[in-house]
Amino acid sequence: MTQSLPFSSTKLDDLLDRAGADVLFASSKHNVQYLLGGYRYFFFEHSAAIGLGHYLPVMGYVKGRQDLAFYVGGGDEGWGLEVFPIWPERVATVSWAAPASALVAAEFLKSAGFLAPRIALEPELWPVAAGEVLGTELPGATFIDATELLEELRAVKNQAELNDLKNAAAGLVDSMVATFQWIRLGVTETEIVHQLRLEQTLRGLDYQFALITTGPTFGRAPSQRRIAKDEIVSLDTGGRHRGYLADMARMGVLGEPTPLMKDLLDEILSIQAAARRAIKPGTVGGEIYRTALQTLESCPHRSEMHFVAHGIGLIAHEAPRLTATGPIPYADKHAQRPLESGMVISIETHVTHPDVGFVKLEDTVAVTDSGWEAFGDWGRGWNVPNPASVG
Amino acid sequence: MTQSLPFSSTKLDDLLDRAGADVLFASSKHNVQYLLGGYRYFFFEHSAAIGLGHYLPVMGYVKGRQDLAFYVGGGDEGWGLEVFPIWPERVATVSWAAPASALVAAEFLKSAGFLAPRIALEPELWPVAAGEVLGTELPGATFIDATELLEELRAVKNQAELNDLKNAAAGLVDSMVATFQWIRLGVTETEIVHQLRLEQTLRGLDYQFALITTGPTFGRAPSQRRIAKDEIVSLDTGGRHRGYLADMARMGVLGEPTPLMKDLLDEILSIQAAARRAIKPGTVGGEIYRTALQTLESCPHRSEMHFVAHGIGLIAHEAPRLTATGPIPYADKHAQRPLESGMVISIETHVTHPDVGFVKLEDTVAVTDSGWEAFGDWGRGWNVPNPASVG
Repeated sequence: MTQSLPFSSTKLDDLLDRAGADVLFASSKHNVQYLLGGYRYFFFEHSAAIGLGHYLPVMGYVKGRQDLAFYVGGGDEGWGLEVFPIWPERVATVSWAAPASALVAAEFLKSAGFLAPRIALEPELWPVAAGEVLGTELPGATFIDATELLEELRAVKNQAELNDLKNAAAGLVDSMVATFQWIRLGVTETEIVHQLRLEQTLRGLDYQFALITTGPTFGRAPSQRRIAKDEIVSLDTGGRHRGYLADMARMGVLGEPTPLMKDLLDEILSIQAAARRAIKPGTVGGEIYRTALQTLESCPHRSEMHFVAHGIGLIAHEAPRLTATGPIPYADKHAQRPLESGMVISIETHVTHPDVGFVKLEDTVAVTDSGWEAFGDWGRGWNVPNPASVG
Repeated sequence: MTQSLPFSSTKLDDLLDRAGADVLFASSKHNVQYLLGGYRYFFFEHSAAIGLGHYLPVMGYVKGRQDLAFYVGGGDEGWGLEVFPIWPERVATVSWAAPASALVAAEFLKSAGFLAPRIALEPELWPVAAGEVLGTELPGATFIDATELLEELRAVKNQAELNDLKNAAAGLVDSMVATFQWIRLGVTETEIVHQLRLEQTLRGLDYQFALITTGPTFGRAPSQRRIAKDEIVSLDTGGRHRGYLADMARMGVLGEPTPLMKDLLDEILSIQAAARRAIKPGTVGGEIYRTALQTLESCPHRSEMHFVAHGIGLIAHEAPRLTATGPIPYADKHAQRPLESGMVISIETHVTHPDVGFVKLEDTVAVTDSGWEAFGDWGRGWNVPNPASVG
């Protein structure tokens, strides 16, 4: 009953209370992992469809009653739990489809006496097939969007999480640096990304995506374009370490960087440095934008420059949400909120130049008690392969 | 208007007609890929969550009117489409969250004059947040489950799909054989799976999962258990080639296989062979079970043996669904249906033995005009590492 949980139940209870919820259902990979202290079910990590069904885990948490917590897993999920015991006392590994998960979750609630619960769940991924079952089984239930309260619960990272993010960043940057070393004249963007993926896998990362440009081009999907002598390569890639995500960008050139290339990257470095100077506990997150954009405005190539900063952790854009403008809804919600030690921020600047191409750095910066610490903070200049391979 | 589609529009129109649907929304990775002739958006392939939203593509198809087809993609999905043009004429890459995808899809339908469409969609993954938008935007709409009709559309593979499945199987088995060669005394199950993942990545596969046992144990999750001399290893793993899935199992032993080990694997081979003998166009799928189980019943170790067969393609269990018993709903739906050339079947037999461990083969067998062809049909005996590494 007083078991130690991997998150603050006080904070979660308060968040549920403020949202008007009695019960939480978490089903996304990142929120299930968070509430279960690191657990991700390896079997369905990369694909959820099986037969006519879809894997839908339900981590159920009852406000103020951790003894009533439950977990509904897949029909074969004993495989995962045998190597990673989880804290809820009530566990059912029975479901091969979303309605079955919802049915078992509803039964857990009914058996605990909840006939008209106010359930906070994730409507962006809770499927209609599961929603219909809840409506039938718990006709008195009402539903609340849990997305933001779960984001808030995850906003400040603990030391174990910071270590995971640091290791993710280190492995990701090492992978990029090794890939730049590997590049040879005439390899395609697709081949470079294949090598990057291999370097990530070698380092135990779970590869997520890679954006790439070569030479004076701006399409960022891996293509069949071959790199020529003296052309640049931009890599912007994501990889997970124990679920925690690094999303960073580094630059390479197949030859000696020109003075213009150096100028462009130096301008980016100055903006990235300005952004960091704003980072310390108590400063509002929007200050990162203000100082970065102030420096950006003084850059010779400012007209083609773009700056973005956003929280990162188990997903790519999370609290603190600082993005001043952009397409992602509510992206600047936390701009006026003080930063806290343990928040982690992805800081990115890019410039496009018609003769050089797409130049970008993206860094991972944690807020610390005394200011900030950048994770994987190397390889930020022009990475140049062994001259013998340049041809 | 008479553009060549990557699937049979005649068949799809007929399936929609029989389901009572006017319109199809496909949103799962496998069905989007199928309808768009191989397209998968690389950026969201491994994670769908971003900010408060969730990536939800919508491939919209209007029965009999391919000119009205549309695709709603993510806000950055121009990156994917620039290297893989798709056939629908109406494309919107605008959505950062499920409601936005549903809104744009509804607008496409309304602009084409559909105010009360009968929409077939995938309720196992269509989120309630998107369902609410459709209810508001198209209050006259009704909804139908598209899962089975899409499975049926994919049931018989064309030559390009068969080639992809064959390449997936070849790469997967090569990866397992290379991993068995790599195994050294004292490595852990987790280290073996890391090597297997690396071997898959080297061969261009998208690693999905691995089940493993070592020695006389039966827990199939990768664990910290270390392999000892003369112990067996079972590998059962999935990997994708261009989206197409191979899911196969092979055996290794860290020493010379004992006569008992040989007997167990020979019994499995005899059951796998019996299953294949039933495979040809026109034979009902249930015949695979009948012949396999007949042989199984004659095996000395039959009491601890299990046989399963099921269709495979873009997902792990699909048509023809033959599983005689088991937890997956409707798993034997196609047992009485004649097999067709181009169907692909995963055939698996395992036996557990207290002194030896978990022994399994899983093969991929395509139905051909003249009978069957097994893909990646090697490495089916006891794979033994270089003796120098056995110690």
